[in-house]
Amino acid sequence: MGHGGGGALSAELVEHVFAPAFGGETLATMADSAAVTLGGARLAFSTDTFVVRPLFFPGGSIGDLAVNGTVNDLAMSGARAAYLSCGVVLEEGVEMPVVARVAEAIGAAARTAGVEIVTGDTKVVEAGHGDGVYLNTAGIGLIPDGVDIRPQRARPGDVVLVSGQIGLHGIAVLSLREGLEFDVRVESDCAPLGGLVEAMLAVTPDLHVLRDPTRGGVAAALGEIAAAAGVGVAVDERHLPVPEPVAGACAMLGLDPLYVANEGKLVAFVPRDHADAVLEAMRAHPLGADAAVIGACVADHPGMVVARTGLGGTRVVDLPLGEQLPRIC
Amino acid sequence: MGHGGGGALSAELVEHVFAPAFGGETLATMADSAAVTLGGARLAFSTDTFVVRPLFFPGGSIGDLAVNGTVNDLAMSGARAAYLSCGVVLEEGVEMPVVARVAEAIGAAARTAGVEIVTGDTKVVEAGHGDGVYLNTAGIGLIPDGVDIRPQRARPGDVVLVSGQIGLHGIAVLSLREGLEFDVRVESDCAPLGGLVEAMLAVTPDLHVLRDPTRGGVAAALGEIAAAAGVGVAVDERHLPVPEPVAGACAMLGLDPLYVANEGKLVAFVPRDHADAVLEAMRAHPLGADAAVIGACVADHPGMVVARTGLGGTRVVDLPLGEQLPRIC
Repeated sequence: MGHGGGGALSAELVEHVFAPAFGGETLATMADSAAVTLGGARLAFSTDTFVVRPLFFPGGSIGDLAVNGTVNDLAMSGARAAYLSCGVVLEEGVEMPVVARVAEAIGAAARTAGVEIVTGDTKVVEAGHGDGVYLNTAGIGLIPDGVDIRPQRARPGDVVLVSGQIGLHGIAVLSLREGLEFDVRVESDCAPLGGLVEAMLAVTPDLHVLRDPTRGGVAAALGEIAAAAGVGVAVDERHLPVPEPVAGACAMLGLDPLYVANEGKLVAFVPRDHADAVLEAMRAHPLGADAAVIGACVADHPGMVVARTGLGGTRVVDLPLGEQLPRIC
Repeated sequence: MGHGGGGALSAELVEHVFAPAFGGETLATMADSAAVTLGGARLAFSTDTFVVRPLFFPGGSIGDLAVNGTVNDLAMSGARAAYLSCGVVLEEGVEMPVVARVAEAIGAAARTAGVEIVTGDTKVVEAGHGDGVYLNTAGIGLIPDGVDIRPQRARPGDVVLVSGQIGLHGIAVLSLREGLEFDVRVESDCAPLGGLVEAMLAVTPDLHVLRDPTRGGVAAALGEIAAAAGVGVAVDERHLPVPEPVAGACAMLGLDPLYVANEGKLVAFVPRDHADAVLEAMRAHPLGADAAVIGACVADHPGMVVARTGLGGTRVVDLPLGEQLPRIC
């Protein structure tokens, strides 16, 4: 299971099995989406598969995840998603109202995100060989002129921002699945980030890195950027916007909010000169109201993320090995 | 299972559940791939999911299918595939050498087809919730200027061609799965059709319809075109290139070769004036050596496919309801 968790085991599978077999230089950039040129147009192209359990959870569903997951991967290249594909694997015996509810969730999420689903495919597997519904989406969008956002562009001196409260999606799904009850109901943050990124790009096209901290959470996102750019990242835990119910649930379950999945947040590496204005633009957007500076990109400890703890000490933030929370998206 | 078979039940699921929920006009064209415009470029965009059992079969593997399936869907818009995405669902416990073999098959097929895999995603589901490996690919390619190939463009008078021997993929997979032994080993015809389509377009950009007869075979492809364009299709069974081992296996199993899946063939509707030259160009290409005229598009019986039988009679070729051969791709 760890190989699907988005952590070090996942990276190993991609780096050592898939990437060498597939060949090609674009895949090797390991960005959330690929930047390609076709017919003179600079396109972002990305895919994601969704196997979340259960199919519906507080704040969203597998259909919302499938649309927003790919919309957000494209946004992490600075592209506004234009068109999506949707591949469906149904398990024999899944009830038609469930399929219809998933389809309606996909359609509603697409309308909210302003993206059109233009092509699809459905396969059915025997009962016991699936899990109700698996979804895959792929998407394409146009990368604006002058925009070059990718993990390799992180530079010492960049300010590291997060767009809002972290850990909501993972805790929402986990609490439902495990039958946990908290005083405050936690809802997934699942949302499309294209508009927020447009607002940030209106300040400056020179954003260095964007990443949506899904599987493996903010820790995995920062760790992958540090590794890709050969830079260090210093985070101040006291500045992490961890909402009270997430902090409480994590304390109870022995989880670290830095590693819990988000589905409507982004981490940004922004040149220091633009950081204040970008932060202000984020806070003016409904999906960035709780945006915060959480750290900086540094020349020290290249490839490594270090957190300053609430007690004033520091600790290394490892890339998660496997998965704290399987089947979270 | 019938809802995944590519026949009438599949069409019903798409027309009545997914298409209305998703909205959008492009999806409603029901072509193998969507034609969209982005940044001034006319693009074909398509997706396919693969759940074939077993993963490896004579003449190919799930990896070959995943690449060629999407490459061919794009080719059916006249586009040469440029970039592919690849989404992988692994079942917990699947052996790493199997994963590596699938990955290598994907890479090799991509190189053969001249397409680059630029983005991917891997998820893992618990043992018993998958079937070893499921794959999804999506692809984009450029549609050449002046090319407008889609089912709605079929016109009475068009000549109907098929690019070669039919029924090979379905019989290859079925015979392996069911442990059937024939005198002659049947291999899948799985192949990328982009080059063949380029050769046909070099004769004239005015090809009306291209379709790759995969699930549901030639019968489903012709039936969908007849329905989409509101035309009749008249096929002469005596001209269908059915290879002897396929004919024999079908006779033994009670199958109709018209309904058996192909993975390296296309059906073309071509204006009569260009038909001879297009047929000649097809036969000059390695993947079209056995190309043949199999019928014509007619004004009679709109929406219906009628076959002239070997005995001189005629029969209606229905859209297959469900699936003769489940999990064939």
